[in-house]
Amino acid sequence: MRVLLPDQPPFRALHLPGLEVAYVSADHLPDGPADGLVLWGLPREARRTLLTRGGLKWVLTLTAGVDHLLPDLPEGVALYNAHTLHDDAVAQHAAALLLSAGRGLSRFRDAQREGHWGLSGSLHTLRGREVVIWGYGHIGRLLEGMLQPFGARVSGLTSRSSDEEVRAALGKADDLVLLLPGTPATRHILNAQRLEQLKPGAWVLNLGRGELIDPDALLSAVQAGQVAGAALDVTEPEPLPQDHPLWGLEQVIITPHIASTTDDLPQRGADYATTFLREMQQGGAPEGRVPTGRGY
Amino acid sequence: MRVLLPDQPPFRALHLPGLEVAYVSADHLPDGPADGLVLWGLPREARRTLLTRGGLKWVLTLTAGVDHLLPDLPEGVALYNAHTLHDDAVAQHAAALLLSAGRGLSRFRDAQREGHWGLSGSLHTLRGREVVIWGYGHIGRLLEGMLQPFGARVSGLTSRSSDEEVRAALGKADDLVLLLPGTPATRHILNAQRLEQLKPGAWVLNLGRGELIDPDALLSAVQAGQVAGAALDVTEPEPLPQDHPLWGLEQVIITPHIASTTDDLPQRGADYATTFLREMQQGGAPEGRVPTGRGY
Repeated sequence: MRVLLPDQPPFRALHLPGLEVAYVSADHLPDGPADGLVLWGLPREARRTLLTRGGLKWVLTLTAGVDHLLPDLPEGVALYNAHTLHDDAVAQHAAALLLSAGRGLSRFRDAQREGHWGLSGSLHTLRGREVVIWGYGHIGRLLEGMLQPFGARVSGLTSRSSDEEVRAALGKADDLVLLLPGTPATRHILNAQRLEQLKPGAWVLNLGRGELIDPDALLSAVQAGQVAGAALDVTEPEPLPQDHPLWGLEQVIITPHIASTTDDLPQRGADYATTFLREMQQGGAPEGRVPTGRGY
Repeated sequence: MRVLLPDQPPFRALHLPGLEVAYVSADHLPDGPADGLVLWGLPREARRTLLTRGGLKWVLTLTAGVDHLLPDLPEGVALYNAHTLHDDAVAQHAAALLLSAGRGLSRFRDAQREGHWGLSGSLHTLRGREVVIWGYGHIGRLLEGMLQPFGARVSGLTSRSSDEEVRAALGKADDLVLLLPGTPATRHILNAQRLEQLKPGAWVLNLGRGELIDPDALLSAVQAGQVAGAALDVTEPEPLPQDHPLWGLEQVIITPHIASTTDDLPQRGADYATTFLREMQQGGAPEGRVPTGRGY
């Protein structure tokens, strides 16, 4: 079995007996056919070149989302994602943003830069907050467990929830956490109309895909004080251009799509790939198979 | 029973049958003897005037700490604190600071002000972190429960832990959370020597009293990179003067002694006082009696 791996130090260090391995970077796409392709951080053009070569049987992307891959994935090639590599960190980042919003940490950071000691604005804990997770799956379950000792009341919506269910959940939400995948059906799922259905003064958090939110509608809702604030790890467009108005709003918290990033993520990614490859070699069925007809 | 209450709206709104009530503010100290005094946010001079009047049987301070009261408390006057009013919020604020430190939220806030999208510096979750709580009591227990689903390993020290125990705990700590009360014995308990015993790269959090830390030693340790950073809700001096060097350090996070503050704290304080007063009227033993010989 010949496999193409990311040309990164933790992958170079792997010992994979019985496998023929070649390393891939944007600058170097090895020749010849391969049975499998492990993808991480490769630009789209390079990905496309490798994906359209003949003989490819499977692709493992070490990301959780697959929306960036689906348009280029040839029929008949099995796709695997690595959501278990990211779920815990994303849930922890969501909890960090929820708590940071409640405890005013970005406002206090702004005050710190002025050397100003003092209380301004609203402060809350998560006790008694109605937290609605839209896109309740692996991450949502972890997040619910994390929020329980803080006294938050968590409920979930999925992309298949009815209009009635969505409306009822938004109407009671103190915090709305978006964790939906990026698909044609979820694009701008949080639009002006849905934002109006939100309980006034709610916080909006997005750790799914930037495209879930209509950015103009969100901007208006924050500026009008209709929502108390927004914490965004993903944006539309992404990266957010330097002159984008969202950067400048006090009640908007932006992190640059790093919800699942930790110092040890490259090593954890290589370890994940090792386990995956061992199972593939043994003819097993590794976790993470993506039903590619499903849209994500 | 005649009782003096803080002159704040939620206390003015209380209905307390069978009690003679007078309201106290810095500008207005009612005449005449009182059996009990409920204190919240009164300047020291005013407090002292009321405390030294004859006939006082008990004092309820709606704070958790009592270090500011002890020097002025006449012998024979029973002292009660209201730690249960604050424990949960302080634990939640500690968790917020731990997560914010790990997820780089203050660095990203700084980058946001420049309109800069990008990853810089170290990121971690709490999974596998050794969190040492120095001053493990009511708040520590709550915090431990909150951190458990994040995969942190929590251990506790008290002001009575031996030198050996402290040294061993500091040596393995990824995060050191100070929750000790302010007493002569805990002043500068985290000094240069103790900071050197800390595992290199640890974070230091202080939600106890500013005086727990030798500020010059902490400043040196942060500047030298000996500790990864510090998150301080309390400082020495307090408030921190505008020109203090701690404000300007990227890896220092400062909140202005608001760990227990929430929008509904005044109302919760009035509710707490109501329950307390009812128990006093019925001759009961309200919670929160402080053994005043103990130093805090």
